[in-house]
Amino acid sequence: MRSDPTGLHRVLDDGVVLPQAAQRLDTRRELWPDEVRIRVEKLNLDAASYRQLERTYADGDAIRAAVLEIVATRGKMQNPETGSGGMLVGVVEEVGPESPLGLNVGDRVTTLVSLTLTPLVIEDALRDWDGLSEQVPCDGYAVLFGRSIAAVIPDDLPRDLALSVMDVCGAPALTARVVKQYDDAVVAVIGAAGKSGSLSLAAAKDAGAARTIGVVPHEREATLLEDAGIADAVTIADARDPIALRDAVLASGGPADVTVVCVDVPGCEGGAILTTADRGTVIFFSMATSFSAAALGAEGVAADVTMLVGNGYVPGHAAYAMDLLRSNDGVRGLFEGRLG
Amino acid sequence: MRSDPTGLHRVLDDGVVLPQAAQRLDTRRELWPDEVRIRVEKLNLDAASYRQLERTYADGDAIRAAVLEIVATRGKMQNPETGSGGMLVGVVEEVGPESPLGLNVGDRVTTLVSLTLTPLVIEDALRDWDGLSEQVPCDGYAVLFGRSIAAVIPDDLPRDLALSVMDVCGAPALTARVVKQYDDAVVAVIGAAGKSGSLSLAAAKDAGAARTIGVVPHEREATLLEDAGIADAVTIADARDPIALRDAVLASGGPADVTVVCVDVPGCEGGAILTTADRGTVIFFSMATSFSAAALGAEGVAADVTMLVGNGYVPGHAAYAMDLLRSNDGVRGLFEGRLG
Repeated sequence: MRSDPTGLHRVLDDGVVLPQAAQRLDTRRELWPDEVRIRVEKLNLDAASYRQLERTYADGDAIRAAVLEIVATRGKMQNPETGSGGMLVGVVEEVGPESPLGLNVGDRVTTLVSLTLTPLVIEDALRDWDGLSEQVPCDGYAVLFGRSIAAVIPDDLPRDLALSVMDVCGAPALTARVVKQYDDAVVAVIGAAGKSGSLSLAAAKDAGAARTIGVVPHEREATLLEDAGIADAVTIADARDPIALRDAVLASGGPADVTVVCVDVPGCEGGAILTTADRGTVIFFSMATSFSAAALGAEGVAADVTMLVGNGYVPGHAAYAMDLLRSNDGVRGLFEGRLG
Repeated sequence: MRSDPTGLHRVLDDGVVLPQAAQRLDTRRELWPDEVRIRVEKLNLDAASYRQLERTYADGDAIRAAVLEIVATRGKMQNPETGSGGMLVGVVEEVGPESPLGLNVGDRVTTLVSLTLTPLVIEDALRDWDGLSEQVPCDGYAVLFGRSIAAVIPDDLPRDLALSVMDVCGAPALTARVVKQYDDAVVAVIGAAGKSGSLSLAAAKDAGAARTIGVVPHEREATLLEDAGIADAVTIADARDPIALRDAVLASGGPADVTVVCVDVPGCEGGAILTTADRGTVIFFSMATSFSAAALGAEGVAADVTMLVGNGYVPGHAAYAMDLLRSNDGVRGLFEGRLG
């Protein structure tokens, strides 16, 4: 069987589906000519996925067992409930002769495609992970396809910091692209003190936003965000309460031409729509977004807003996110604070 | 309690949520000053919702009982599984003194906001419905809010035809808006022989598309669509098979600058993404769309495509859809054929 750049040749399902939609992937060690094998050092679970595991299982041991079970069964780390995965960091172990990715054996890389489509074998039973955080030390291997994306970790940044940035690097790139479509945009970022949120704030400013509004859920994050100095205004609101969210953004200089949703809790669609100006754009980056709630929510209040599914891929996204981090001490401080 | 144009005052849930997200609405007959009450003649269930009911229940009686149970429990018709509703047709019964909708008692209207947020009381136990079609004859009443949308049914079109068009009128308006953003766009419509699909094809051409490709699932629909003469090319593919869909569209003049997804089956995200050109746009109108499958699917194949949640509201959408139907015999024929 010939390989396909999408990884179709590793799908074990009966029907024809892409690896991301597959129930089970072929994890054989041997590479097709356009593939790359990575020696995995660490997994970084998607936040929505980890929260679901945390809610469902009693303790770290049970969470670890659940992750091992998913990977053993599916040949990839894809949470069956949230549909989401995460990413990994590792070292290039072997490069197929026809790989177009430009990687060399020994490169330390992160994958910029989701774990939900990456063949993965865990070989150490995750013994070094206590199950209590999204960052999972791991020994094992993973396979990249012809059309995968991986980025070499820059030398000037600590590994965990770089990994943490690359995990969300689609958000600032897409935010910048959308903000540039407006003149003097007002940009509201929901979940602004988080990883994708803080980078999106910095990207909005970089792309020419006239005013940025950071929305956070409580006083502690408001203080963090104010101290970082990366938003023109900081406001506190429960993003699941549409009226509270709308009123908070209006009081801070809204409505927003561009609203960026970066909180991984369900039920934020209505508020994001009400917060957005006529002909404005909502970008949904949260994996907890409900398609029907967004579609029907906008229609239900006769809101003429453009709603984007936050695509995690924009060309140059990793380098752009790294540059924002390097040039913005406030953003860097928030990231370093999270890594503890 | 004062009324809110979003209908918030009719939400009976404990938390603050908009009517669309609510578990239960207040269906009292008495109007707040900005509301309108409609005497309902007919419900038109969302296709994805009806399919789910059809799959779940043994016969028409059981489907009818399920709909009655949902409406009695929730005070609105919102399928708990699909999250979707539909729309209604009826006659204006009372207009609150502060209603901004411009309706008069006796107007025959369709609601252009979803049933998922419309307070509804069924008074005839749906005795005239056999449960075997999405079109539900119904006597009862419904309430519109200040920010709702309703359109008076035009005199020159049969009621069922107008209702059928208005049900999907967001699709052609948004398709036209997106197609105009490209020069000489190639437009692929998945599910092109259906209601939203055929109108989207006509809208794409009207908006200046250089080439329109209609994708249908089998020979019967291909013949229908070819006979209607509304697509430059007609091709057959299973939209759930991403490789088959990509190859079919490529062979018909693709990739598409704009791909419009109008089929109400799950699993079409990957194919729609692969079918779309670099920097192209996918518009998802199907309520069966999975947010995470779209987001991760695009990232997974490094696709730089814009993905839109199909907003059912665009200003002027109903009038535009009616005009397309009036001026396009092929589209009108497909609609009339469906009504039997």
